[in-house]
Amino acid sequence: CEDIAKRALALPCPTPRVCHLRNYLSLNSQTIVDQVIAVFFPMKNSFTGESTLEISCHGNSFIVEKIIEDLLKRGCRIAKPGEFTQRAFLSGRIDLTQAESIAELISAKSDAELKIANLNLAGSQGKVYKALQERILHLQAQLEASIDFPEEEIESESKSSILHVIDSIIEETSLLIDNSAKKKILSNAIRVLILGPANVGKSTLFNSFLGLERALVSHKPGTTRDYISSQVSIGDYRVEFIDCAGIRKTDNSTENLGIEKAIELIDDAFLILFVIDGSLPYPTDFDQRALDKIKGKEIVIIENKKDISKVVSSEQYPAHIQRFEICAHETSDVSRVTSFINTHLTDKFYQDPSKEVIVNARHRKLLDNSLSHLRRARKSMDENDGEEFVLQELFNSRSFIDEIIGVKTNEDVLDKLFGEFCIGK
Amino acid sequence: CEDIAKRALALPCPTPRVCHLRNYLSLNSQTIVDQVIAVFFPMKNSFTGESTLEISCHGNSFIVEKIIEDLLKRGCRIAKPGEFTQRAFLSGRIDLTQAESIAELISAKSDAELKIANLNLAGSQGKVYKALQERILHLQAQLEASIDFPEEEIESESKSSILHVIDSIIEETSLLIDNSAKKKILSNAIRVLILGPANVGKSTLFNSFLGLERALVSHKPGTTRDYISSQVSIGDYRVEFIDCAGIRKTDNSTENLGIEKAIELIDDAFLILFVIDGSLPYPTDFDQRALDKIKGKEIVIIENKKDISKVVSSEQYPAHIQRFEICAHETSDVSRVTSFINTHLTDKFYQDPSKEVIVNARHRKLLDNSLSHLRRARKSMDENDGEEFVLQELFNSRSFIDEIIGVKTNEDVLDKLFGEFCIGK
Repeated sequence: CEDIAKRALALPCPTPRVCHLRNYLSLNSQTIVDQVIAVFFPMKNSFTGESTLEISCHGNSFIVEKIIEDLLKRGCRIAKPGEFTQRAFLSGRIDLTQAESIAELISAKSDAELKIANLNLAGSQGKVYKALQERILHLQAQLEASIDFPEEEIESESKSSILHVIDSIIEETSLLIDNSAKKKILSNAIRVLILGPANVGKSTLFNSFLGLERALVSHKPGTTRDYISSQVSIGDYRVEFIDCAGIRKTDNSTENLGIEKAIELIDDAFLILFVIDGSLPYPTDFDQRALDKIKGKEIVIIENKKDISKVVSSEQYPAHIQRFEICAHETSDVSRVTSFINTHLTDKFYQDPSKEVIVNARHRKLLDNSLSHLRRARKSMDENDGEEFVLQELFNSRSFIDEIIGVKTNEDVLDKLFGEFCIGK
Repeated sequence: CEDIAKRALALPCPTPRVCHLRNYLSLNSQTIVDQVIAVFFPMKNSFTGESTLEISCHGNSFIVEKIIEDLLKRGCRIAKPGEFTQRAFLSGRIDLTQAESIAELISAKSDAELKIANLNLAGSQGKVYKALQERILHLQAQLEASIDFPEEEIESESKSSILHVIDSIIEETSLLIDNSAKKKILSNAIRVLILGPANVGKSTLFNSFLGLERALVSHKPGTTRDYISSQVSIGDYRVEFIDCAGIRKTDNSTENLGIEKAIELIDDAFLILFVIDGSLPYPTDFDQRALDKIKGKEIVIIENKKDISKVVSSEQYPAHIQRFEICAHETSDVSRVTSFINTHLTDKFYQDPSKEVIVNARHRKLLDNSLSHLRRARKSMDENDGEEFVLQELFNSRSFIDEIIGVKTNEDVLDKLFGEFCIGK
């Protein structure tokens, strides 16, 4: 970097981290390629930990290509995907959870994801895992001591206290694993399914959510053959509303296809808005069947068409299901539903950095392994198998957490992890 | 800028021009939006001359939007197209020719354009115009002196010397105007037309130029109904090869359309490669007619199919036209043609910064006006109309050059000029 700063930019001793306005000179002809801003980051004071030179040129892809070509002639090479982050990790400037958080930052599409990624970049995940390791390590030390002084057998009081500590570590690990479901939901958009028989106003509601007409609104039953979806921001969250075909008995095969799709969509939905026409009797055969199918999911009943004379009394609806009486055309009614969704999501996904860590799929796998060794350690302890066995299991358990933060690095894992980054990151 | 650095980045007194790694905090919630690099450029030491804060975030459009939204809430507004450059001009950091060179840098697509833009950014154009102004001003001063001392009439010796100076300024201005044609050609790709009757190997030659098969090669006459074109880099230049339909007598109306197109293309072509089948007699009726039509243009005769027995002797070809005997399939033959094109373009467009200035369309218009006043000044001087008239014309002439470098600014002109920039420049 120093050499290129000197030769290509006539910057023999660039002041670290300062923006220098310079002409970039081509290697062959010494002609000016562009007037650029160059910043030199010295060793141990850069993102990667190695000395780095950043060159910002005018926004013209022809110029960018010329400069890259010239740098290649000077002996540089193009970075591999994620190579800068990988080097930052390998030089010990960040741990593996922080490296992952950079990829999360770049792909974040909602405030909730952004918050988590920023927390992780600051090292909050790393801290939790390191604390977990500490606890296991402490336990190991305790047991080692009892091996070194075999004359004193572990007393039953001490045994129960060790079991208690293992239990609490198991509990903590389980909690982390449970949180991985949150991560999965937040990484994609949170799916809210608009379900109901044909002609109850699902598409109108869908459009109202979007604030613009995206779906075809029609009073002919079964217009929405398949399903349409669109993403919106609600509070910190990215919500995907899905307007799917009405679930109804029909011989029309296209309509059936739509129904099948809807049933598939139910599984993936985080929340189901079950739309009912309040001016018609309830429950119809259809309502009964549909509510049967979505049993166990989070459901809200949306009683639409409140402006038309109502024929159902409130007691007829299932008491345990939240219900909104709305007119899907009314902005104020629809915003009551969206603020309910926001509150509901906040309840579910609120991230308290001091208490919670959201765990990604890679961590989850490793935590699962760690947990099973912890359980074996507990069993061995409980059954007095001998400290050596317990220690081995604790050691195994801890080594999986090592892998999470990258103390124990497996090259294949690293290549895969950083290979998923984009180039230049 | 200082206020935003303080509040959004917790950077109360940023060291000028230094890269600071900081968390960007949102105005409403004080949560971290992203970890960013921020650089503060203080007044009189920035591109615009005003204090500037540059924020580089992670490459995620969601984050970019969040930060822009937040900055808008803090009282910022989005810059107008070219506003940064306009401010740099208005604060006197660059003249108008330098401002224009930034737009040229951004749109440059060849080394030749890049060289000119970089020269202009360095102020080489401005220098030439300022020198021109100096010369006119000097003449004005001389004439003013003779008005202040009216008892001494301008002697004939002095008169002829003044006429001589005006003539030389006129010559210089005319040269600059002539150079505007170069600019026009270089700003677009330089068009090289591949012309000739059907079935002589035009498409083969076209493909060889491109180094890959882009045109449909066929031995059926008239396959290339319309024309196809493709751009390649030759030396410092961007060359557009155009393979157009053969010019031939035909009753086929589609073919005729192709011919008409070709005739239109002839006007725009910088160079015409007239392709002839060397294994057939020359000149045919067709050759005669076609060469008639392209008279006055720069032409090179490409005698193709040298591998087939030749029936034309060299003396039959027009002696004044450069000729290449080639086989359009042979890389070495085709590269002889491209290196000829490169040499030819370099002869025509070589830019010697100490001697030449390439003039754009805006400058050309103003120079035309300046020139006509110079000519009037010369006439008045020659016809002894009185120094006042000569002075007035010299003043008018100079004021147009003022407009070129932006000493005399017309707001409409500025708005139009900077409005053509992209946003953020």
